[in-house]
Amino acid sequence: MDLMDELKKRSVYVDKGIEELLPISHPEELYKASRYLPDAGGKRLRPAVLMLSTEAVGGDPMSVIPAAVALELVHNFTLVHDDIMDNDDVRRGMPAVHVKWGSEGAILAGDTLYSKAFEILSVMEKDPGSILKCVALLSKTCTEICEGQWMDIDFEKRDAVSEEEYLEMVEKKTSVLYGAAAKVGALLGGASDEVADAMYEFGRLVGISFQIQDDVIDMVTPEDILGKVRGSDLIEGKRTLIAIHALNHGVELEIFGKGGSVSPEQIDEAVSILEGSGSIKYAQDLSTETLERGKKMLDVLGDSEAKNILLAVADYMVTRNY
Amino acid sequence: MDLMDELKKRSVYVDKGIEELLPISHPEELYKASRYLPDAGGKRLRPAVLMLSTEAVGGDPMSVIPAAVALELVHNFTLVHDDIMDNDDVRRGMPAVHVKWGSEGAILAGDTLYSKAFEILSVMEKDPGSILKCVALLSKTCTEICEGQWMDIDFEKRDAVSEEEYLEMVEKKTSVLYGAAAKVGALLGGASDEVADAMYEFGRLVGISFQIQDDVIDMVTPEDILGKVRGSDLIEGKRTLIAIHALNHGVELEIFGKGGSVSPEQIDEAVSILEGSGSIKYAQDLSTETLERGKKMLDVLGDSEAKNILLAVADYMVTRNY
Repeated sequence: MDLMDELKKRSVYVDKGIEELLPISHPEELYKASRYLPDAGGKRLRPAVLMLSTEAVGGDPMSVIPAAVALELVHNFTLVHDDIMDNDDVRRGMPAVHVKWGSEGAILAGDTLYSKAFEILSVMEKDPGSILKCVALLSKTCTEICEGQWMDIDFEKRDAVSEEEYLEMVEKKTSVLYGAAAKVGALLGGASDEVADAMYEFGRLVGISFQIQDDVIDMVTPEDILGKVRGSDLIEGKRTLIAIHALNHGVELEIFGKGGSVSPEQIDEAVSILEGSGSIKYAQDLSTETLERGKKMLDVLGDSEAKNILLAVADYMVTRNY
Repeated sequence: MDLMDELKKRSVYVDKGIEELLPISHPEELYKASRYLPDAGGKRLRPAVLMLSTEAVGGDPMSVIPAAVALELVHNFTLVHDDIMDNDDVRRGMPAVHVKWGSEGAILAGDTLYSKAFEILSVMEKDPGSILKCVALLSKTCTEICEGQWMDIDFEKRDAVSEEEYLEMVEKKTSVLYGAAAKVGALLGGASDEVADAMYEFGRLVGISFQIQDDVIDMVTPEDILGKVRGSDLIEGKRTLIAIHALNHGVELEIFGKGGSVSPEQIDEAVSILEGSGSIKYAQDLSTETLERGKKMLDVLGDSEAKNILLAVADYMVTRNY
């Protein structure tokens, strides 16, 4: 199995689904702004997890494409609004939505993606009871994403953040949407609540592992692969799990929150201090352990090609090095 | 029947519903920001229309309180985001959400209200098929509200706006949510699709009439009742139906879009020009005619106290003078 081929196969359907289910209608410019980011592509990991989950429980993945599109639109909605809030002007190598259409345009494009996601999900041709469960789960998930983003913004203004708080933020901001993708796929594929709940845990745990790994990657990946300054989280004073571990163990980091330009030697020094304090290993170990716990959840499923691909997606999400 | 008493009776349940269904949980400050505007009260016209529609088709209004709360939260979500986009710093006599919590806080508070509305609606104790119809309708309505707000912003940048475009904008920005309130109430009350559709038309037409009347009120109401400068729409160059009619008939209005301070004499002069050109009467007549068409929709219903109150609500919305 070539994972990239498997992802590509599915993303073609998702791309087509976006075109059909979110057509450029009237007022045209609003729909152009709404489609701008979804059209920029990407690996469509969340839709893939959703479709594979359907397949892994014995359902027809082609019948859940609208739900996969809905998940992808929710993901894009959060990116559009987050970029306004975080003043991030570049996304996927392009000017952010609010740079092209102003904040008003980006707020409305995000709101449109949000409502379209629920519209698309609610008119699917599936049993109303199952769809309604998915609507309830997806709306709860959106609320949690808002909570996670609020915590993330709040952490920047605070002196101390505990590991527990960090993990709660990461769970809500990133991982619940992976959980929802897996569970929606399972529910629409006809799985029992018990199996669907295990699938949720799979997505949630893998999502947490993925996010912790992101912090590690920022430290240990050469800049030419990373595509940005190594240690940028540290320099910006971001409270990653590594930074929290270090601060809790009295490690002094000269460059933490320093901003501006920091020499490669200073970064090397900081990284070796964090290696010495065991902070990087701590995060790496927690990421690996969480990944294993997540993958274990799939034990509820019988063997299948889809299950194998799901396990490979999980590994890929965490072992990628950029 | 005292209409204010009837509205008050229902708003008490809605207020209580908001407290219970959107509790101040964690992170506390996000929920405070989300509750700030809903807690500021108001007449709760949309929830009242929803509950009365349930009652008018023979359902139990107490059983639809969560849906009424969901409608009110959607309405508040649009106010929070609109105020950011329109730079309106005061709402209901208080600082707007974005003034108190910044744009980031207001974007997130709005997003939270949005997802909570769907969460509350989707877990109601009603038949899944009916709830799902309501989810589909409410999400479609939210998309239309985004379209309407986009058009409204766009109109300000344009030289010419047709009457047709204006009416489409008003319909989407304001009236579809009244339509949805009436139809959701009817569906959850067990009405047939035919009756539910007539209820939607009732809400939609009354909503349009209400919005056109708003433009008239700005012209003809004394300032001490209006609570703001008379003719402010004109001074700001807002393309109301009255302004569009006048411009289309070659009427020259010195103060149109002039901004800044305009003397009461100049406003009086503009109003009498608009009376002379028939522009105010044109809007007033269209508002009245649309109201009557809306009320006529309730002919599908048998006589009931709830129906009478709905008719009184419609009259009140349009004949109020501030």
